[in-house]
Amino acid sequence: MNAPTDIALYMQTLGQQARVASRAMAKASTAAKNAALLAMAAELRARRDELLTANAADVLEAKANGLEAAMLDRLTITAKSVEAMAQGLEQVAALPDPIGEITDMKYRPSGIQVGKMRVPLGVVGIIYEARPNVTADAAALCLKSGNAAILRGGKEAIRCNQAIASCVRAGLAAAGLPETAVQVVETTDRAAVGHLVAMPEYVDVIVPRGGKGLIERISREARVPVIKHLDGNCHVYVDVAADPAKALAIVENAKTQRLGTCNTAESLLVARPAAPTLLPQLAAMLTAHGVEIRGCPETCALVPQAKPATEEDYYTEYLAAIISCKVVADVGEAIAHINKYSSAHTESIVTEDYTAAMRFLREVDSSSVMVNASTRFADGFEYGLGAEIGISTDKFHARGPVGLEGLTSQKWIVFGNGEVRV
Amino acid sequence: MNAPTDIALYMQTLGQQARVASRAMAKASTAAKNAALLAMAAELRARRDELLTANAADVLEAKANGLEAAMLDRLTITAKSVEAMAQGLEQVAALPDPIGEITDMKYRPSGIQVGKMRVPLGVVGIIYEARPNVTADAAALCLKSGNAAILRGGKEAIRCNQAIASCVRAGLAAAGLPETAVQVVETTDRAAVGHLVAMPEYVDVIVPRGGKGLIERISREARVPVIKHLDGNCHVYVDVAADPAKALAIVENAKTQRLGTCNTAESLLVARPAAPTLLPQLAAMLTAHGVEIRGCPETCALVPQAKPATEEDYYTEYLAAIISCKVVADVGEAIAHINKYSSAHTESIVTEDYTAAMRFLREVDSSSVMVNASTRFADGFEYGLGAEIGISTDKFHARGPVGLEGLTSQKWIVFGNGEVRV
Repeated sequence: MNAPTDIALYMQTLGQQARVASRAMAKASTAAKNAALLAMAAELRARRDELLTANAADVLEAKANGLEAAMLDRLTITAKSVEAMAQGLEQVAALPDPIGEITDMKYRPSGIQVGKMRVPLGVVGIIYEARPNVTADAAALCLKSGNAAILRGGKEAIRCNQAIASCVRAGLAAAGLPETAVQVVETTDRAAVGHLVAMPEYVDVIVPRGGKGLIERISREARVPVIKHLDGNCHVYVDVAADPAKALAIVENAKTQRLGTCNTAESLLVARPAAPTLLPQLAAMLTAHGVEIRGCPETCALVPQAKPATEEDYYTEYLAAIISCKVVADVGEAIAHINKYSSAHTESIVTEDYTAAMRFLREVDSSSVMVNASTRFADGFEYGLGAEIGISTDKFHARGPVGLEGLTSQKWIVFGNGEVRV
Repeated sequence: MNAPTDIALYMQTLGQQARVASRAMAKASTAAKNAALLAMAAELRARRDELLTANAADVLEAKANGLEAAMLDRLTITAKSVEAMAQGLEQVAALPDPIGEITDMKYRPSGIQVGKMRVPLGVVGIIYEARPNVTADAAALCLKSGNAAILRGGKEAIRCNQAIASCVRAGLAAAGLPETAVQVVETTDRAAVGHLVAMPEYVDVIVPRGGKGLIERISREARVPVIKHLDGNCHVYVDVAADPAKALAIVENAKTQRLGTCNTAESLLVARPAAPTLLPQLAAMLTAHGVEIRGCPETCALVPQAKPATEEDYYTEYLAAIISCKVVADVGEAIAHINKYSSAHTESIVTEDYTAAMRFLREVDSSSVMVNASTRFADGFEYGLGAEIGISTDKFHARGPVGLEGLTSQKWIVFGNGEVRV
């Protein structure tokens, strides 16, 4: 690797090249984009041993530097992960092309016909941790959505990322697309990130993929829009009109299917009239799964094994075998509690009451609001997006699971016949 | 007026109140929002003399301070402008309510049904110059789209803005909505703007309405998303296959109907084979309208009255009786020229050639791209949006003319029947 010495100049060069490449990508045909994705998949398979060797060197160095076990695990790739990356590229090739879609063409009294065409955002910067699979995944999503990409992965994965980047370039070239359409930042200097997020002339949007610390830092420094994903403090509210069997199944799945995901339930609200019968059953189920219950005084009175919750508990995304619990008067108090304490990710009501369900759907201000379903469904694949760029916890541009459309915009188009404005 | 002394604390209080009010606005019924708009219109009419008196005091002070004539003109309101404001409110009341709209509900293999619900952004900050009518207009757009608003108008209009704000509050109260749903900043201290654009916890989006200087300053300082409108360096490209009558009509309308609007054409491109016959006709028409032509060497050879254009001319939004002109080889060179020099606002091709038209539509990277129509149509009302928040020159969230939808987002909603994730 030729580590660049002038980081600012280096990043500016990447930006300029990406901007130029983005013009070619915006007009690239669906066939060319798909051909590139399939050629990349073939390259990854053909150069599997090269990738594994590069990764082994990364892992060796990371171990010597004392990288923690969980991160080492995500850094390490196997023959199986290379095959998964290749299949991921093929799946993105199979998705419909979002670009160029024309919608809503309507005639106006002036005679012009006005509507919208879906277009790429331009240049996407992706910043992520030391997970080589994200390199292939992010390249595919940006390419299919007609954007150019600048990828900045964690420094521990630099050799493997460069090997994957080489496969990506080969795939682009095979399809007659510019190799600079996907560029991997070749320096491990952290200053590169600072430059990447502050070049509005060359970069249209930043997508950080990683821990909260990374995302907060990037959002603070960014001078371009950021599609960001912060906390997932998700709630399940069991209404007075809940079907007990559904409540048990949904709370069990939402809390215990996986403890560490952003759509895992972290807080349980139960309507007061239902609490004496339902809360002990729910608590017994959670305790059987090893989940600690931190509850309000009413919860603690009904559930002997519960510990008292603090105010802080209700704000907390545990990502662990702990759940906060509160008895509330009704759906109105549940909504108020959620809108105060939630991180606005995903909330679900369990109820057979139509009016309570519709009110919850309308008034809860979160990116996903559900009736009688597990919060674990909040996911781009479960929602049918075919791919997931990330889950946005913002309201601007995109909310919740973001598919390829999140990397696009719409321009206005007009079909006229010589009309002028009067 | 009670000028607050601690501006930071004052703005924070406005922000907190707006955040609370935004919850009530998000769930407000269409009937309540429309009732508030109609009550506001009635208040404006009933208190017309009070508004005119307040405005007269503003104008007197502005004159004494030497405000320039054009700005004095925009500051001054008459009985007719009060009636126009009232009618504007009634027109917004008549628009369909964007909030709560449910779309795209589709069943997934898991059994859940997933789709989207349109929701407000939350709190909108509007920053504008000394134009009292914007106060009523901005209040109406934010209210109808279910948002709370904080309005910061130019200091010269402070008395009139406060009088309008009082009508707005009365309208909100009459409809049972919180009076803090629309707050006018009551200090003329410029520091208030700095605070308003840097409170992401209380303000979700900023819409600046005014000159480029204002918008650039706000974009630089903002810590929340900005829907911004910068230059309009619009192009008309007359293709080799142009209908000469359409070319003449469109160029005339695009350049000369109004000189100072953002969708006025500032640059004319003509295909080389058409130039010898068409360019002299187009130039004669422009000259007859008093428009100065600044052209490339080929233009100057064909058009005796043309002056030589500099590189800078092709980047320039004149907002005056000047147009830059360039002879290009074909549609490909026209697209390349536009994508380099344009401000990405609005461009139009004049052609009878289907393939050239479709290529121009796809490849020109501007917020509005037209075939055989005047650039002057790039406007929220002409596009049928019913209202215009502004014209966005960004790609993120919204591009081009922005209607009520630009102040909304979509959340995901799920109808389930007890489903859990496997």
